[in-house]
Amino acid sequence: MGHKFVNQIGPGETIDDIYIVNNPILRSTTRGDLYIAMFLSDRTGQLNGRMWQATEAVYKALPQPGFVRVQGRSELYQNNLQIIINNISVVDADKVQIDDYLARTDKDIDKMFEEVKEMVGRIENTQLKALVGEFLADTELMERLCNAPGGMKLHHACIGGLLEHTHNMLRVGVAMLPLYPSLQADLVLAGLFLHDIGKTEELAYDMAFCYTDSGQLIGHISKSLLMLNQKADALRSRGVQIEQEILDILGHIILSHHGQYEFGSPRIPATAEAAMVYYIDDMDAKISQVVEAINEEVSDSNWTAWKNALQTRLYRKRLE
Amino acid sequence: MGHKFVNQIGPGETIDDIYIVNNPILRSTTRGDLYIAMFLSDRTGQLNGRMWQATEAVYKALPQPGFVRVQGRSELYQNNLQIIINNISVVDADKVQIDDYLARTDKDIDKMFEEVKEMVGRIENTQLKALVGEFLADTELMERLCNAPGGMKLHHACIGGLLEHTHNMLRVGVAMLPLYPSLQADLVLAGLFLHDIGKTEELAYDMAFCYTDSGQLIGHISKSLLMLNQKADALRSRGVQIEQEILDILGHIILSHHGQYEFGSPRIPATAEAAMVYYIDDMDAKISQVVEAINEEVSDSNWTAWKNALQTRLYRKRLE
Amino acid sequence: MGHKFVNQIGPGETIDDIYIVNNPILRSTTRGDLYIAMFLSDRTGQLNGRMWQATEAVYKALPQPGFVRVQGRSELYQNNLQIIINNISVVDADKVQIDDYLARTDKDIDKMFEEVKEMVGRIENTQLKALVGEFLADTELMERLCNAPGGMKLHHACIGGLLEHTHNMLRVGVAMLPLYPSLQADLVLAGLFLHDIGKTEELAYDMAFCYTDSGQLIGHISKSLLMLNQKADALRSRGVQIEQEILDILGHIILSHHGQYEFGSPRIPATAEAAMVYYIDDMDAKISQVVEAINEEVSDSNWTAWKNALQTRLYRKRLE
Amino acid sequence: MGHKFVNQIGPGETIDDIYIVNNPILRSTTRGDLYIAMFLSDRTGQLNGRMWQATEAVYKALPQPGFVRVQGRSELYQNNLQIIINNISVVDADKVQIDDYLARTDKDIDKMFEEVKEMVGRIENTQLKALVGEFLADTELMERLCNAPGGMKLHHACIGGLLEHTHNMLRVGVAMLPLYPSLQADLVLAGLFLHDIGKTEELAYDMAFCYTDSGQLIGHISKSLLMLNQKADALRSRGVQIEQEILDILGHIILSHHGQYEFGSPRIPATAEAAMVYYIDDMDAKISQVVEAINEEVSDSNWTAWKNALQTRLYRKRLE
Amino acid sequence: MGHKFVNQIGPGETIDDIYIVNNPILRSTTRGDLYIAMFLSDRTGQLNGRMWQATEAVYKALPQPGFVRVQGRSELYQNNLQIIINNISVVDADKVQIDDYLARTDKDIDKMFEEVKEMVGRIENTQLKALVGEFLADTELMERLCNAPGGMKLHHACIGGLLEHTHNMLRVGVAMLPLYPSLQADLVLAGLFLHDIGKTEELAYDMAFCYTDSGQLIGHISKSLLMLNQKADALRSRGVQIEQEILDILGHIILSHHGQYEFGSPRIPATAEAAMVYYIDDMDAKISQVVEAINEEVSDSNWTAWKNALQTRLYRKRLE
Amino acid sequence: MGHKFVNQIGPGETIDDIYIVNNPILRSTTRGDLYIAMFLSDRTGQLNGRMWQATEAVYKALPQPGFVRVQGRSELYQNNLQIIINNISVVDADKVQIDDYLARTDKDIDKMFEEVKEMVGRIENTQLKALVGEFLADTELMERLCNAPGGMKLHHACIGGLLEHTHNMLRVGVAMLPLYPSLQADLVLAGLFLHDIGKTEELAYDMAFCYTDSGQLIGHISKSLLMLNQKADALRSRGVQIEQEILDILGHIILSHHGQYEFGSPRIPATAEAAMVYYIDDMDAKISQVVEAINEEVSDSNWTAWKNALQTRLYRKRLE
Repeated sequence: MGHKFVNQIGPGETIDDIYIVNNPILRSTTRGDLYIAMFLSDRTGQLNGRMWQATEAVYKALPQPGFVRVQGRSELYQNNLQIIINNISVVDADKVQIDDYLARTDKDIDKMFEEVKEMVGRIENTQLKALVGEFLADTELMERLCNAPGGMKLHHACIGGLLEHTHNMLRVGVAMLPLYPSLQADLVLAGLFLHDIGKTEELAYDMAFCYTDSGQLIGHISKSLLMLNQKADALRSRGVQIEQEILDILGHIILSHHGQYEFGSPRIPATAEAAMVYYIDDMDAKISQVVEAINEEVSDSNWTAWKNALQTRLYRKRLE
Repeated sequence: MGHKFVNQIGPGETIDDIYIVNNPILRSTTRGDLYIAMFLSDRTGQLNGRMWQATEAVYKALPQPGFVRVQGRSELYQNNLQIIINNISVVDADKVQIDDYLARTDKDIDKMFEEVKEMVGRIENTQLKALVGEFLADTELMERLCNAPGGMKLHHACIGGLLEHTHNMLRVGVAMLPLYPSLQADLVLAGLFLHDIGKTEELAYDMAFCYTDSGQLIGHISKSLLMLNQKADALRSRGVQIEQEILDILGHIILSHHGQYEFGSPRIPATAEAAMVYYIDDMDAKISQVVEAINEEVSDSNWTAWKNALQTRLYRKRLE
Repeated sequence: MGHKFVNQIGPGETIDDIYIVNNPILRSTTRGDLYIAMFLSDRTGQLNGRMWQATEAVYKALPQPGFVRVQGRSELYQNNLQIIINNISVVDADKVQIDDYLARTDKDIDKMFEEVKEMVGRIENTQLKALVGEFLADTELMERLCNAPGGMKLHHACIGGLLEHTHNMLRVGVAMLPLYPSLQADLVLAGLFLHDIGKTEELAYDMAFCYTDSGQLIGHISKSLLMLNQKADALRSRGVQIEQEILDILGHIILSHHGQYEFGSPRIPATAEAAMVYYIDDMDAKISQVVEAINEEVSDSNWTAWKNALQTRLYRKRLE
Repeated sequence: MGHKFVNQIGPGETIDDIYIVNNPILRSTTRGDLYIAMFLSDRTGQLNGRMWQATEAVYKALPQPGFVRVQGRSELYQNNLQIIINNISVVDADKVQIDDYLARTDKDIDKMFEEVKEMVGRIENTQLKALVGEFLADTELMERLCNAPGGMKLHHACIGGLLEHTHNMLRVGVAMLPLYPSLQADLVLAGLFLHDIGKTEELAYDMAFCYTDSGQLIGHISKSLLMLNQKADALRSRGVQIEQEILDILGHIILSHHGQYEFGSPRIPATAEAAMVYYIDDMDAKISQVVEAINEEVSDSNWTAWKNALQTRLYRKRLE
Repeated sequence: MGHKFVNQIGPGETIDDIYIVNNPILRSTTRGDLYIAMFLSDRTGQLNGRMWQATEAVYKALPQPGFVRVQGRSELYQNNLQIIINNISVVDADKVQIDDYLARTDKDIDKMFEEVKEMVGRIENTQLKALVGEFLADTELMERLCNAPGGMKLHHACIGGLLEHTHNMLRVGVAMLPLYPSLQADLVLAGLFLHDIGKTEELAYDMAFCYTDSGQLIGHISKSLLMLNQKADALRSRGVQIEQEILDILGHIILSHHGQYEFGSPRIPATAEAAMVYYIDDMDAKISQVVEAINEEVSDSNWTAWKNALQTRLYRKRLE
Repeated sequence: MGHKFVNQIGPGETIDDIYIVNNPILRSTTRGDLYIAMFLSDRTGQLNGRMWQATEAVYKALPQPGFVRVQGRSELYQNNLQIIINNISVVDADKVQIDDYLARTDKDIDKMFEEVKEMVGRIENTQLKALVGEFLADTELMERLCNAPGGMKLHHACIGGLLEHTHNMLRVGVAMLPLYPSLQADLVLAGLFLHDIGKTEELAYDMAFCYTDSGQLIGHISKSLLMLNQKADALRSRGVQIEQEILDILGHIILSHHGQYEFGSPRIPATAEAAMVYYIDDMDAKISQVVEAINEEVSDSNWTAWKNALQTRLYRKRLE
């Protein structure tokens, strides 16, 4: 029998299923009894859980976060659904169907990564080649690149989403560069590959997608810039020449890829290459958002619900 | 000897050259003498001209606008350079080097138009094919499409500029569509071809680039929509079926291709196809602007002057 | 006994009344049983309805939308009130009190329309007179003008609301024109009459107020412009002269009547007449909004609730 | 022979005419010679004046500001026209044609003021009647109301302009109030009469239009509110009852009549009467701006120059 | 046993506690029975109360607002918690623990007020000293200054909050003035003391914090200006000289202390002293907001919930 | 005899003085003659220079930039003043009065730096102490900190300006921290010291103030973050423990110190310490701007000219 997803639970149901527990807290009621408050989630959402008459031993056994089997009952409290837990026990991660808890790209991760390597392999400039190579050689980082989500909510919010976004942007870049021959293709390719690399540190995605503390304080744009400079320092310490100027130009592409100050870019694109990376990023993100919103609409209407990030409802009907 | 361009004239020079005359007005001085005020221009700029002791006959002979041979002298008046005209005579348009007066794309117009036809020829949907065909069959309109400028100032401001912009956008669309397979390619191609078609009526470009009255009152977006509906009416009157729905969807692409209300779009893109046309238009326009601004910079600095439309100066130095 | 309005239903009530059904969908539960999901509404709001153990025959009998008698019970589900339906049957539209389902202006529609005709009858310019006459002669369109709502929510959201708004604007125009003698009264009157005419196609109002697909894709501003040009084409085809210039000037009034790009106007008012139409429209809409919001406030407070569209609460107390 | 207006002076002309002198300053050159710098103006503009080899006696005789006869010569300096003064002498104000120096409304001030009195005379509410009466009884203030300009630049920038604007707004109010019967007419009339009354203290207009220090520090909106409260205090000190509530409601109309925070209103209209005063003010100001801009255009083009405050060029051609 | 706070009530609980009653209204059901609708609140929030089978006598006995003992039961209705009241009786204000109903600063009000007097006592300019003295001598006003809240929601929303904010701003001013020696300290101190004095009339705080009608119509900025001018009038009527200029400069500080039009300032700071008052106000308000939001967060997360007024979540973890 | 400043040169003057030459370019006229175009500047401004009949030898001898003695004549060309150069020769930097070419703070740089060291010396947290110490130990960097300008134009645009701004901000921080005891003083002090440190690399100031290429591509905010991480890496490589968390919190202060995305901050202040650094920076910058603008006004008016960055004119008159 399949997993009962959080968004399918109504009030008054009996619950016996595996969820991710988050932020469990041991508290005492005004009468002095101990209870545990916690969040229970899967890939479709999150609910409050309450375990009354709890003990410190039960509390200490809970992972933060981790998989648990929850037995209890759903009820409405102050207009919110919550789970009243009778029994809770830790479950080994191997025993769960991970896809029930984290969405995953439906593209082939290995194949996409191979194609990414092929496309950045076209870079000819020696220094850019060395920089990109230093990233590719960092297997732990590439592992994270292959698994990180592309964002928290609006598009590519799935395991492999960052790679999918990077891969598609590189493909668009490869298709468009011949049409803009005055642009320096090496810079565009390196910029497309690296502009979001800091998201591997900005976002956590073990049990759910969330920002890391460090990610929230610093942001993926600045993290990408720091990583670029660290790779350059590593290369230089091994005697490979990386000029400051090339770091500045590539760093500028990273810093300006949101296009405007209002969107968190500390720089405005000041080269044609930075402008192209910004436009490809924006276009791929927005078209993905539109396509995903149209696909996910559950009603039969010709129109989706209002999409705030797009400032419109979307028309779903296709030509015959 | 070559043409003396307007932006090369200093004060106190003797002038004997051909310029375009614009808006000549016959006035009388406080003493009652007649004189003619007018603008003189070529592709590099415009100056005031004054002809003292003029006669009504001279005034009446002047074209509005047209080519004239001007003999006189340049001087400063209230801090502006003006031409004091001793003699003025009409010149046949055949006698002038038209390129001195109107900038022209350096691409091959015929070849671009052939490629445009080939690309929109890929449209398979019967009704879209009919609509696009109706435009292609309007040879007078296609003539204007091939010669109209793409804009007044920022990019593609040259004879053939509209075609160059349309051509490049179609090439980008053809390159990108395979990467976004869920989009309806026919709609994107038709949208790219038609979104700016109203510029053929919005801009005048016989002697100089300027807005027509009608263009300024109505705008190219609404003009494009009107032209689309007129072509549909023409088809329908010949018994060809064009459904309202397809007109609405294609019309929506036209109406939303500036992307936001702030930029004069009366609609926000509500389909993936409209979003793609908007992004390709925006990207091609902005990258062209950046490339042109970098190429036109006359100083030797690594940076261009401040570009207000881009909100930055541009970095011109290339990797070695 | 009167109709039980949607906004008066609490949880746990027995329901036996007539509502409008919308978007019925036949689905199957995880156990394979069929059920029908639908919306039930009247002029005060809308609720979800669920009919369990439904059959395909019942589903196929449902109108989309249409009036139905619903027997069942209200209950809370996931914090939303829904109707569990035991029995549902189609009701003839003649049997319902239509005013329970659609709000209607409390003004006299026939009288307002007569006054509108009288006011636009003052137009003297031959071509404007012909254009306005062509609209007045379109009885089907005038029928829609008399019944369409003026908007979806903020003001004049009732049957006859568009006419009420048009009528009041014309009266304001007639009162103000003598105070601004340099304005061309004929243009102002024609502009006031036609600026929102596209709303007859933008909004549907058979059972409820909603946007048509075409209305949402194209918008009433562009629809008004298209209708103006179609009427002009019809006149011209009968040999009546309508100059392009007069179409452009009147079209400009339509295109700029929201005053700013931000509010969906593709043009900014560039004539005094366009400015006056914009101001009268804005003023009549906003004062109506204020008056309606003050009248509809149900609390006894001196202040209404916060009105987001007006960015303030409203003070309701009157001088003694 | 008429006055030579400042905007008619070219470089290298001999000057002997009367101008207003402003801000004369006595300075010494690097060689130690004394000279006087000053501004010379009339209603068409302002120029720098320089008098070399000046004496302290000449300087001390100059009014600040005042009328002076200037003899000298015009020349270009650092690209600006300036007057080199050989001789300067004070001129009695009675000897000058004041209209050469300050623009004046072409309407009849006395007649407008009579009509204003008649219109506010329709107020029936006892307390509002008393408040308005207190203002009308202040003859010195009414004198200033009749002569103050309505603004510095954009519209009604002439002697009598404030009265003209107030008069026209009252006429519009009187024409519109019957169409909005739920509004409290007395409040609208009092609000229209008083909303800009503080401009009598904000603007100075003896020799030229400028802000007073007090006007610039406090602004006419707050000044109007202060004046209203002072008149109420005066009435109360004579035993006339003025309730706080009526002062607040009328004060609110004054404080919110710019409509939005962005335009310097410390309040947003929260009553229908405040909304109407705001809309009438905005409409009369903007339509006057459009009409004045169209009338003042000197070229023969169908379009005026770009008008920044209106964000458009204006179309000047009228229907035949 | 302690007070049961409104935010601790769940559905289905028995209620017997003291709350503040607000806006009681006597209504009749469709069957003709009388019932009373009202709001019940304490310092943690507000709920709807309904008393069925009520009598006019019960209704007339209710204070508006005031303390009442409520006996009844909590239940969900249309997804909102409400109290069904069986019995309601007036309670004397002396019998309640006022702190359960209104939050109060945890600073010492008397001590803060003494320090405020000491700090403004440093003013040396005779006229400013007289003006400030006139405020200090108004014991009723000073009483309100000591008890008024500093705002409705975001910061200093407690009895004594206005004094706490004024006191802290004066302390910051005293600390910073030596570092900006060119500023006129007397003006800064007087401005800090008086800039928010109008909040004593803008906000009511007997039973709960709310805006007065007058406060909402006029706003505390304009009220502060009016109070300043009234104090000046009182001084002048006693023969104390207060120049208009000093009133304008101090008035300007009050009028511009929100810094920008968008934030409701009718003036922009035009003196260094006005700029300093604005910055100290803004800084103290925002830092208080941040500190309060961090302290009030109830979760154990390193981050608070999203704070809309600050446009971010806040990081709560401290260095070890 | 003193230096003739650029802003004192009129047309038609004989020039023999020392200026900074910038961007000299060797060009040929249409007749084939060589000439040199260049900029000539001092601290008051910049002019075009033209040397006709130049040789390649003269061109090659010119520094880029550097001090040169210029002999020639000033003239107007296309409404701009330019210098026609007869003779040009390199001047040793030791021979010039450097203050004629670069403005310098009138504060004592050594004393300010000592006080800065004293104030950051109060930091107690071991890791922050180590980080700040690492910066202080970088004598070359501290040398640049002591000499860099604080900005290009609006405030602190002088040699030593960055130190003056940093010094004053630290003094304000030291004065205010006791008033906000819940803030972590060490973080505020470290943040104040380091937030603008990247300006040492962003701005060049040998001959004039300008952005470096690297500074313009990357910006001082991101440069400061990179420098912080480099110092941390250096410390770690010597075995000093610097936790990632402390780098993130301090980095966040740097990244958010412009307060809003619109002003180029890639982060919004999310800690009370970051908020304080932002407010102190903003306040010190703006008050300095106001004070400098008031001091630099050359007219005798009570008001300065309009200051665009402050959106107002400034009132200059002081209380007596």
